[in-house]
Amino acid sequence: MKGAQDFRAWMSDIQARVELALERLLPAADIVPTRLHEAIRYAVLGGGKRVRPLLAFAAGEAVRADAARVERVACAVECIHAYSLVHDDLPCMDDDVLRRGKPTVHVAFGEATALLAGDSLQALAFQLLSDTRLADRAEDQVEMVRLFAHACGSRGMAGGQAIDLDSVGKRINLEELEHMHVHKTGALIRAAVMLGAHCGPSNDVASKLECLDRYARAIGLAFQVVDDILDYEAPTASLGKTAGKDAAQDKPTYVSLMGIARAKEFARELRARAVDGLAPLAGRGTRLAELADFIVYREF
Amino acid sequence: MKGAQDFRAWMSDIQARVELALERLLPAADIVPTRLHEAIRYAVLGGGKRVRPLLAFAAGEAVRADAARVERVACAVECIHAYSLVHDDLPCMDDDVLRRGKPTVHVAFGEATALLAGDSLQALAFQLLSDTRLADRAEDQVEMVRLFAHACGSRGMAGGQAIDLDSVGKRINLEELEHMHVHKTGALIRAAVMLGAHCGPSNDVASKLECLDRYARAIGLAFQVVDDILDYEAPTASLGKTAGKDAAQDKPTYVSLMGIARAKEFARELRARAVDGLAPLAGRGTRLAELADFIVYREF
Repeated sequence: MKGAQDFRAWMSDIQARVELALERLLPAADIVPTRLHEAIRYAVLGGGKRVRPLLAFAAGEAVRADAARVERVACAVECIHAYSLVHDDLPCMDDDVLRRGKPTVHVAFGEATALLAGDSLQALAFQLLSDTRLADRAEDQVEMVRLFAHACGSRGMAGGQAIDLDSVGKRINLEELEHMHVHKTGALIRAAVMLGAHCGPSNDVASKLECLDRYARAIGLAFQVVDDILDYEAPTASLGKTAGKDAAQDKPTYVSLMGIARAKEFARELRARAVDGLAPLAGRGTRLAELADFIVYREF
Repeated sequence: MKGAQDFRAWMSDIQARVELALERLLPAADIVPTRLHEAIRYAVLGGGKRVRPLLAFAAGEAVRADAARVERVACAVECIHAYSLVHDDLPCMDDDVLRRGKPTVHVAFGEATALLAGDSLQALAFQLLSDTRLADRAEDQVEMVRLFAHACGSRGMAGGQAIDLDSVGKRINLEELEHMHVHKTGALIRAAVMLGAHCGPSNDVASKLECLDRYARAIGLAFQVVDDILDYEAPTASLGKTAGKDAAQDKPTYVSLMGIARAKEFARELRARAVDGLAPLAGRGTRLAELADFIVYREF
């Protein structure tokens, strides 16, 4: 019980820290072009569970990384996440009007501004990865940019969106569904963990990347399985977005392919796979394990 | 006359080299997601004057940069340019159906795929800037990423698009028009020059950045002034895109604000401003000067 309270406090601290950092790092709303900057701030601030930043900080703690560096990385990942939601909500994509309980960016600011806000957020993420020193060796920082750019691209997150598009209305099997999610949500979740880890001292990081990578892949998939479960079960109000849309759009999900009971079991299996691999972190993987529990047992 | 022939040959060489490099560096069309990769290749390959790559190579020659590095940088800049055109052509932006004499990407592949192709191209540009070593010192490569990310973002190119959006149907003055173009087209043209220069030996580069920066700013603006002149004067067929759209959409241009004669004079003044500053390059600025002439006196 104490552990759980401690974790909740840590989580709130990180969430508040990331919110403050984003407030500071996003262009102010009175800088020209003001409407674009308003839209960017609207898209990023004041909402979201900040799961990816939490993962970056938890991975950073596992390798004794400098917290100021991890904060930058966490904000960069969150900018990419926010941009992906803004573009994903556009009429030509999911055509969603509600996100985190608020009108989506294109509803509030118009489609053109939403498009540019997403585009700008992707660029901003790379600004955050290059504006200040984030690794002991500059070579490692170039590697961080490389890892991140691949996670965002056509064989990472954006590619996952494209696979998702192609799958609507089609019968796909579990393997194809996993392939989609490994890209669509998994790539950025993995980037959050790996970038957080890269902020650590270089001698400490290399030996731990493999187990962190395994953790990140399992938890990235678990995250999506739980998302599908929540979309199936939760009412719109508690979800803060339109629930039941997957079924309405005839999108394949873990629930539609496995059934609800097996999907829940699969999420627990993935949690175990993620956590069991943390032994090489020699006790510094506590936050990662707690986050795995949080992701799998969350109700929103 | 010999100089002009020599320049044309150099230009063709670089254009062919960049085309081949892009062919190789873009994901193959048979890699999943195939439709996205087809759209990306359609957007980038087989067209365009490759002005930004030419500028990168000319700046690279001015500092004796390694051509293989400049090639990467040129491709990265061209990916950003292509993405900006794809998004700019979307129905929620300029709603254009013709580009380089072909249907625009969203006409050929649908809006959702066009959106994702643009998003992926931005990420790909940063992959190209980080996949291989591009500067003698890794610190300088991080600086290249930084410079590039700022050129792409809300206070660079994407911001310029937003200012452009806000200006439609409004009366703006010359200063505001210049402010828009410094961002919308100037930022990426400047990035092409500066990144090309950063590929050179670090001791050679620092002393030349200031004059290259001055050149890049003048030529970036000249490029837009000439674009406005061509949109006003050229028939659609020779332009490869819909001509006369600026006036039809009541967009402010150099021609509408200055008149056609003064706009042409201004382009020549900017050319002189760009070229006069090249003296510190000690004779290695020939290609940059020739490119300035090409940009200002082009007819397409």
